[in-house]
Amino acid sequence: MARIKVPNTPSIRRMPTYLHKLMQMRDEGEEFASTTAVAEYMNLDPIIVRKDFSLTGLTGMPGVGYKTKELIEAVRHYLGWDRERTACLVGAGSLGSALIGHEEFAEYGLRITLVFDSDPAKIGRVLHGREIFDVRKMRRKVKAAKPDIAVLCVPSSCAQMVADELVKSGVRAFWNFANVSLRMPDGILVQREVIAGGFAVLSAKLLRGADGKTGDKMADCD
Amino acid sequence: MARIKVPNTPSIRRMPTYLHKLMQMRDEGEEFASTTAVAEYMNLDPIIVRKDFSLTGLTGMPGVGYKTKELIEAVRHYLGWDRERTACLVGAGSLGSALIGHEEFAEYGLRITLVFDSDPAKIGRVLHGREIFDVRKMRRKVKAAKPDIAVLCVPSSCAQMVADELVKSGVRAFWNFANVSLRMPDGILVQREVIAGGFAVLSAKLLRGADGKTGDKMADCD
Repeated sequence: MARIKVPNTPSIRRMPTYLHKLMQMRDEGEEFASTTAVAEYMNLDPIIVRKDFSLTGLTGMPGVGYKTKELIEAVRHYLGWDRERTACLVGAGSLGSALIGHEEFAEYGLRITLVFDSDPAKIGRVLHGREIFDVRKMRRKVKAAKPDIAVLCVPSSCAQMVADELVKSGVRAFWNFANVSLRMPDGILVQREVIAGGFAVLSAKLLRGADGKTGDKMADCD
Repeated sequence: MARIKVPNTPSIRRMPTYLHKLMQMRDEGEEFASTTAVAEYMNLDPIIVRKDFSLTGLTGMPGVGYKTKELIEAVRHYLGWDRERTACLVGAGSLGSALIGHEEFAEYGLRITLVFDSDPAKIGRVLHGREIFDVRKMRRKVKAAKPDIAVLCVPSSCAQMVADELVKSGVRAFWNFANVSLRMPDGILVQREVIAGGFAVLSAKLLRGADGKTGDKMADCD
């Protein structure tokens, strides 16, 4: 299956954290941002940070670093976060609710405009300012609103069915939090989020730590 | 700062998904698991899957693959998921609630035994079978229960304060969902979860896709 090639996923995963730190620095009036300061904040080797920043096309000035505002714009542009992306979210449970209420998404250009659920107790209620619609209205509403992305927070047992319905309604990109690998036609993007992935890393570290094998510096956010 | 060295974080991040698929195969009576089948499920190159599996110390049999049950045990052992880890969770909002209710964690040996919040409206309520305790009782209860891990789902503004308090109470490992880099003494493990990381990857793919630069096969779960 042909997939879109994106260089270096771990680098891209780090970008939001760079952005978070850089915006903090900007707000504190720091005109220049050094790789060292960012690296220290993230417990990373400065070489990695420099390499990641170079993906954006910017080059730092020796001994000074980057112009903070320029670097922020370069990172945002690299991620496509300088344009707005609309999304529909299906499954207004606790995870769905957490995502809708995640305030930083607005800064990243992600606007969740439509929310669906199948639970009669939830339909019609308002969650963080969005009305929850009946999932039976999904096809019609999605066809009309044409969201760029669908965020799936439904149980794994019905994720494929919901995704198929959304593809038929014109959605081309999915952020999938359901614990299932979606079978999709070519040309449809899927980013699967495995919440246990972070716990696996922590658990493996904990095990090695307990075995006494300590070693190199390691990022706390990979 | 000295950190625990864990080889290849992306490989470890993929392990829960391997495990999920392998357990499914086991439940369907498949005695042997081939790298090809697992690779196809995850949209990965079989070479990557074989390399990841080799981290567990097991070697597949040519043309047959791995004994499914043996591989499951090897992955669980590699991650330290064959032993139980207890956790306390602080911040019983929608994200905290989603994590407490995440049924797969039990299979991974993670048992959230203590839940704390500062909101009087939440304290005393029961969430997925766990009573929510007043955060003011945290130090005493954590000292008594000695959880292996603390899961932080508190606002970023108070995450450092809560973490400091937990370190004083004896916690040595943190799974941090707050959008802040925690400053910790040496020897304390922190795994920071950046929910926007997945959106960054999806967004970058969407941008490159829109530019028409399609290319190699790419995993939908990295």
